[in-house]
Amino acid sequence: MAYTAEIIAVGTEILLGGTVNTDAQDVSRLLSELGIDVYFHTVVGDNPGRFKQAIDIAKSRADIIITTGGLGPTFDDVTKQTLAKAFGKKLIFNEEVADKISEFFAKRLPSIKMTSNNLRQAELPEGCVIFGNGVGTAPGCAFEADGKHILMLPGPPRECRAMLQSCAAPYLRKLSESEIHSHNIHIFGLGESAVEEKLRGLMENLHNPTLAPYAKDGEVMLRLTAKAPSKERAEEMMRPVLENVREILGDIIYGVDTGTLENTVIGLLKKNRLSLATAESCTGGLLSKRLTDIPGASEVYLGGVITYSEATKSELLGVAPELIKNKGAVSGEVALAMAHGVRARLSSDIGIGITGIAGPGSDRSGLAPGSVYVALSTKDTSLCIKPGLFGDRDRIRISAASNALDIIRRLLQNSDIPL
Amino acid sequence: MAYTAEIIAVGTEILLGGTVNTDAQDVSRLLSELGIDVYFHTVVGDNPGRFKQAIDIAKSRADIIITTGGLGPTFDDVTKQTLAKAFGKKLIFNEEVADKISEFFAKRLPSIKMTSNNLRQAELPEGCVIFGNGVGTAPGCAFEADGKHILMLPGPPRECRAMLQSCAAPYLRKLSESEIHSHNIHIFGLGESAVEEKLRGLMENLHNPTLAPYAKDGEVMLRLTAKAPSKERAEEMMRPVLENVREILGDIIYGVDTGTLENTVIGLLKKNRLSLATAESCTGGLLSKRLTDIPGASEVYLGGVITYSEATKSELLGVAPELIKNKGAVSGEVALAMAHGVRARLSSDIGIGITGIAGPGSDRSGLAPGSVYVALSTKDTSLCIKPGLFGDRDRIRISAASNALDIIRRLLQNSDIPL
Repeated sequence: MAYTAEIIAVGTEILLGGTVNTDAQDVSRLLSELGIDVYFHTVVGDNPGRFKQAIDIAKSRADIIITTGGLGPTFDDVTKQTLAKAFGKKLIFNEEVADKISEFFAKRLPSIKMTSNNLRQAELPEGCVIFGNGVGTAPGCAFEADGKHILMLPGPPRECRAMLQSCAAPYLRKLSESEIHSHNIHIFGLGESAVEEKLRGLMENLHNPTLAPYAKDGEVMLRLTAKAPSKERAEEMMRPVLENVREILGDIIYGVDTGTLENTVIGLLKKNRLSLATAESCTGGLLSKRLTDIPGASEVYLGGVITYSEATKSELLGVAPELIKNKGAVSGEVALAMAHGVRARLSSDIGIGITGIAGPGSDRSGLAPGSVYVALSTKDTSLCIKPGLFGDRDRIRISAASNALDIIRRLLQNSDIPL
Repeated sequence: MAYTAEIIAVGTEILLGGTVNTDAQDVSRLLSELGIDVYFHTVVGDNPGRFKQAIDIAKSRADIIITTGGLGPTFDDVTKQTLAKAFGKKLIFNEEVADKISEFFAKRLPSIKMTSNNLRQAELPEGCVIFGNGVGTAPGCAFEADGKHILMLPGPPRECRAMLQSCAAPYLRKLSESEIHSHNIHIFGLGESAVEEKLRGLMENLHNPTLAPYAKDGEVMLRLTAKAPSKERAEEMMRPVLENVREILGDIIYGVDTGTLENTVIGLLKKNRLSLATAESCTGGLLSKRLTDIPGASEVYLGGVITYSEATKSELLGVAPELIKNKGAVSGEVALAMAHGVRARLSSDIGIGITGIAGPGSDRSGLAPGSVYVALSTKDTSLCIKPGLFGDRDRIRISAASNALDIIRRLLQNSDIPL
């Protein structure tokens, strides 16, 4: 049987715009991997009446109902009470769970006093499977009623994510039969419409596997997904399509299943045993932050400097003050001098220099936001690009850092670098 | 009349977990400011049948329906067609809008060829108010039918956000009468349950204004909200509550309406005409990135270094190699030497040094993830804290950077620094 699921997030703070519903994303991803179709997400406030209404609608159109949030200790946490009532289940105080909550407080949060409210979290629907919470205090659970499967997960994203993997995934895997497998094809350097235009002929004739583009932060990801009785069969179905996509798109594909550009670059540096150092002006540490988001980056990323004032470009990197005066702090020459300088100072194989205007305003010399130079220096090569960046401050900073990552990966993959 | 609204996001990629529904957050925030209650968010795929079902449900329970997404040029973009049909409106090709789309391509994306699909975006429901898109190509619109107001906004977050402010906000402001005003009280250094415990007595007796806590990235924000006929009256109602909260929580409040910790710190540095430089190890540029997220940071933030390898701590900051050898790279002594070193190198008033283990694994010396030292150096003061950090790599990096920001703001607000 093919199951469909609906995800209901309970939390007034989401409806007020204080929080974004990342739990729904995490749950959806898992369900998609398990081949369970999700047709609707709903968000409802901490209000038993409207939550009951959302439950009734979900009951009418889904086999599996997964709720996130509202399991906390405070008086507006209503998920368990409302769901138990909607499915005619009693709430029963569970001694074992209560002990675990007390233990958690004693061990993990010795400085915080446990309140009597925290013990309300030990009340659970009769006959449920208990989902232990390895991160916080609120346990989750699952039960069957009226031919439906109901799962309750905590709202804080870290707790939700941990419980999804450790408890909900095994529970749901038992229900599902056919498998879904997919590959993520990562693209940098072409917009979503243009990618889709190139692939239109291919995409229109695909039903299983399917190919769908997603755009984010100036990148495009294509997800290739096959539904099949086994992983082997799914891979067989996807292989020719993947080859076809590679032929059509060429080297704007920076990786398949390699995650982010930064992850790809760290992987390529490790493979080639090369070290990297960075000198950032307008990106202000964003490139370095993205590189060090990756565990183990320290094997290849030595460090860098953030030269957010003109003087620091000379003090920390030895960029000649006359060069800055003659060419301007935002110039290809200064970007190259930064790349050379940081490579020399940190004795790295590769040096990157970024200088530009992130906005919102123009700089003193009248250069507009988006004027950004990205330079790369190795013992054999030095080059500088000036990508055409637009958008707001965040967008320009992200794109500038992504362009830096892309020239490193092109260098290491022996792809052309469009100058 | 008090209006209620429902937000429907149209996009299979959200149901697959490829994207998070940030548009709903942006729309919710605006509606909350306008005093329009949002009772439900719904997400539905690019499927006309299920979208129609979601529209029918929303019609039965909301006065205003706002959709995001599905206005793009590709064949799975079905929002306009489905909504127009559901409310008995025809789609009409609008020459003026078509010209604007062509112009956008010629001017902003000269390297990308406009496709005939892009012109489908110029078809709009008869009699609608057109919402121009300043960022992308898809126009939005609003129309009235069956006593409801229907607004369509584009899916890409930057486009949605821009259109919300420039078009949807003025449209909705005309509908709303009573005003909602609020203050955000920002707290660092105490968890959400503990904050709520301290404020329980106060919160339980509040109805208008209301006080609600939100937790995010190790911080707590309290939103104080009043509904009143005028801004002056709302402020009058909130003033005594705000004073009460300040008395109860004291200096763990780092700001009111000051936005993030980094924004507060940049503001305090500007006010005190002090400059800052940073030396980061385990946070790898995250602190610097957060500081430079703030436009105008360059007035007070000079720059910094990322010493991701031991050698760079000596090369770039002059930390004595013997100190690293004797005390360990992760030690209070090295954090202090980094803070002193970066302050001296960049001639700043304040220097920050961060060294620690972000995880996931322990370091060679066996120190566990979360062992982090944060040091501050000025010409008069030097101090080092070792906050108790836990959680995964991201969480530890965020908390370490937040602790650094918090000691700067405590220094500048003359608050105690808990050593």
